[in-house]
Amino acid sequence: MMSIAPALSHVRQTGFLRSALSEEGLVSLVTFRKWLSERRSEAPMEVRRVPFSGMKGWTFAGDPSCLRHSSGKFFTVEGLKIETDFGPVRYWSQPIIRQPEIGILGFVTHKFDGVCHFLIQAKAEPGNINTMQLAPTVQATRSNYTRVHGGAGQPFLEYFLDSHRANILVDQLQSEQASRFLQKRNRNMIVEVTEDIPIPDNFLWVTLGQLQRLTREDNMLNMDARSVLSCICLERPGDRDDGLADQTSGFGRELLRSLDEEQSPMYSDIAILQWLSMLRSTYFMNLTQVPLNQLEQWTCSDTSIRHESGRYFSVIGVEVEARGREVCHWTQPMLEHSNEGLNGFLLQRINGMLHFLVRACAYPGNRELFELGPTVSRSNAARVAGHLDAPPFLNLFLNPPEGSIRYKAFQSEEGGRFYHYQNQYILLEATPEERLEIPPTHCWMTLRQIRDLLRHGYFTIEARNILACLDFTSS
Amino acid sequence: MMSIAPALSHVRQTGFLRSALSEEGLVSLVTFRKWLSERRSEAPMEVRRVPFSGMKGWTFAGDPSCLRHSSGKFFTVEGLKIETDFGPVRYWSQPIIRQPEIGILGFVTHKFDGVCHFLIQAKAEPGNINTMQLAPTVQATRSNYTRVHGGAGQPFLEYFLDSHRANILVDQLQSEQASRFLQKRNRNMIVEVTEDIPIPDNFLWVTLGQLQRLTREDNMLNMDARSVLSCICLERPGDRDDGLADQTSGFGRELLRSLDEEQSPMYSDIAILQWLSMLRSTYFMNLTQVPLNQLEQWTCSDTSIRHESGRYFSVIGVEVEARGREVCHWTQPMLEHSNEGLNGFLLQRINGMLHFLVRACAYPGNRELFELGPTVSRSNAARVAGHLDAPPFLNLFLNPPEGSIRYKAFQSEEGGRFYHYQNQYILLEATPEERLEIPPTHCWMTLRQIRDLLRHGYFTIEARNILACLDFTSS
Repeated sequence: MMSIAPALSHVRQTGFLRSALSEEGLVSLVTFRKWLSERRSEAPMEVRRVPFSGMKGWTFAGDPSCLRHSSGKFFTVEGLKIETDFGPVRYWSQPIIRQPEIGILGFVTHKFDGVCHFLIQAKAEPGNINTMQLAPTVQATRSNYTRVHGGAGQPFLEYFLDSHRANILVDQLQSEQASRFLQKRNRNMIVEVTEDIPIPDNFLWVTLGQLQRLTREDNMLNMDARSVLSCICLERPGDRDDGLADQTSGFGRELLRSLDEEQSPMYSDIAILQWLSMLRSTYFMNLTQVPLNQLEQWTCSDTSIRHESGRYFSVIGVEVEARGREVCHWTQPMLEHSNEGLNGFLLQRINGMLHFLVRACAYPGNRELFELGPTVSRSNAARVAGHLDAPPFLNLFLNPPEGSIRYKAFQSEEGGRFYHYQNQYILLEATPEERLEIPPTHCWMTLRQIRDLLRHGYFTIEARNILACLDFTSS
Repeated sequence: MMSIAPALSHVRQTGFLRSALSEEGLVSLVTFRKWLSERRSEAPMEVRRVPFSGMKGWTFAGDPSCLRHSSGKFFTVEGLKIETDFGPVRYWSQPIIRQPEIGILGFVTHKFDGVCHFLIQAKAEPGNINTMQLAPTVQATRSNYTRVHGGAGQPFLEYFLDSHRANILVDQLQSEQASRFLQKRNRNMIVEVTEDIPIPDNFLWVTLGQLQRLTREDNMLNMDARSVLSCICLERPGDRDDGLADQTSGFGRELLRSLDEEQSPMYSDIAILQWLSMLRSTYFMNLTQVPLNQLEQWTCSDTSIRHESGRYFSVIGVEVEARGREVCHWTQPMLEHSNEGLNGFLLQRINGMLHFLVRACAYPGNRELFELGPTVSRSNAARVAGHLDAPPFLNLFLNPPEGSIRYKAFQSEEGGRFYHYQNQYILLEATPEERLEIPPTHCWMTLRQIRDLLRHGYFTIEARNILACLDFTSS
């Protein structure tokens, strides 16, 4: 067993707040853009769709039949039948990805001139719509980091494994899309390294403020990077912040106020746990594994497994050729969505403080029947608008009142599993006067309450992915 | 769907601290004892062991074969094969109870003379060694409280279901013995009722201080009562406590100090989450359901399913005849242990503050691979002493240094499933000077840190059951 004791050391002030309010760092955003376009020119990746029979090592096998690699490694695509007494759809079947191992998604940080910088990586993934996006310092599978393969290979991985070499600032197990993955989780980590470390060309040091600024742009930070950033707990304003909060204004300051412990949220922490205990104990969801090629309402051919309605997603095969420093070639299944989705939080000032409207979501891949998501989260948002199973508040996001949008951008889902899949991410603020009817599946929380629960794994990747885009420097 | 919104109201100060420090309440402990002995004389319950073939409605059926009721209700006893890479035993088989529904365990409270009182119930259970113990106001299964049976029957249940009638003070999902139950959980609730309510003879109002005093006695509070009490978060001393903390001394005051937010614990909250993320991502445990009557190393006859070594537990059948107001008669399987177990927390003052040595436990019935337990927790403590698989610190608890014992009593496990099963509960304080070697499976935490994690379901019933016995009035 690895030794843990030394890792249990005291953590000093993380300096995340100062970094979040620093829009200038070691390099300017102009230099950053030059660096990124150089990276993009260096590392072409060719991705072609292939039939399942053209995927080397991948076969339909097992009982019940699933799509898996002959080595037993990587992941499997399985068939699932779902029955529940919650929500408008009580019975359906779908493919789902099983990948039980827990990987590490991690940022190395280092203080330059007293400001915490994050080491980002320009990384190509086969499913990325723009090939290369900004990734955390490390994206490692379990076989990368356990004794199985000796731990060699990925640069900087040692800082996450050897607690003598870095201070751990964040280390949380967090889930991925539970409508597509069966209880998949990763360790989301941030470590601080005090020694000077040389970095390869495809890495760059930036501040948290610069990362927040970059989330305003479409498909810039990859999903793993956003997932880790969402776990950051900014020091609360007023708490040894040297007046930093005074540098903010407008929306950024409202966000900081929503982190404040001293403010009174609409609902107490006890009431929020009560709401969730009630939901989790009231409803059920039964999962049964069924053969992947015999899923009800799904058509299985050599080119895809697709839903008859075309409203959801398909399983496809791709062939990848990457020419970086070394030539890599592989085939794998991916999930393709027929349209863009929407992830949106509705905000409102209540008791003078910004609250987020959180939704309790039941997905088959959840570890708990209910996890907490954004106000609206639909992979097929545009298609269900006006339908009976359209989610509450969808219309508001599709037709937002003038001046209500606080954030809007396209962001991609994980390019290692999703093929060209992007979602519209929206923060929408209702006026304090607006009387909103809140269904019992939704609950108002402050950012402080969200952060307190988030570290324990209550929030979905959809929610965390928008929370990562909160820009405390915005006005 | 039930309406939730009204339940999400603000909760006032709970008054738990004042109640915990009140050793006198509406009735004295002398009156309490008279009441209990009257109850005991009223409600005889006869329990006889019967062969499985003598249990009405229960059969070995299904594929794989398990022990279940023909109605499909109640619970099933199933066979499980376990493989893991953690701990001294890497492979074993065992029976386990599956009871997927979430019940309610709840106390009604009411303020008399400004002091919060808990409504206890004298309740007989077939497995209780002394037939009748003190139970929470309500112990309800899901079919008791959902529309299925109309919700009638149990008194006081309406206060837990109708959020207009009571203030919710505690509502948390908490687990039961994960070495015997597969992911079983209950809602642990405490509600405050402001209206006057008449109570039947078998109920009584007592203060939290009186309950704490009663935990010093063997087999007085039942497991469900202790489980709910462990979820109480006392107001932190100094926080609007009107100098209440000054009324404590000695060990009671040390316990209160350990709840203090301002004190520095040995390990930061981040470090504790990191330790747990690391464990949860490093190890695996695979469960396979196997026929109950073909478990490796277990002998299945008509009278029991028992382990060949006799070291663990057996599944048996019992017939129950209860004569209270109405005559009840039923048969059911139960678990019988061949000896008493031990649950113990090792304490030590570190940085001038009491810390608890917490162990990360991997049980097959855990929802997460690792949950947090007491320093030592073994159902067969005396039998493994000196053996290779004896747990760390067991010897310390079996041979405690003079003057180190802060608490010691026998407490029973749930009498609805366990037959005459009691454990030794021990709090043992090492001197501040003692140099203890702490294995990487263990971690020091303050009571404040334990309470912060406990509400999110991190702690095992074994840990919660001792934590419920902390007496803040002890000197």
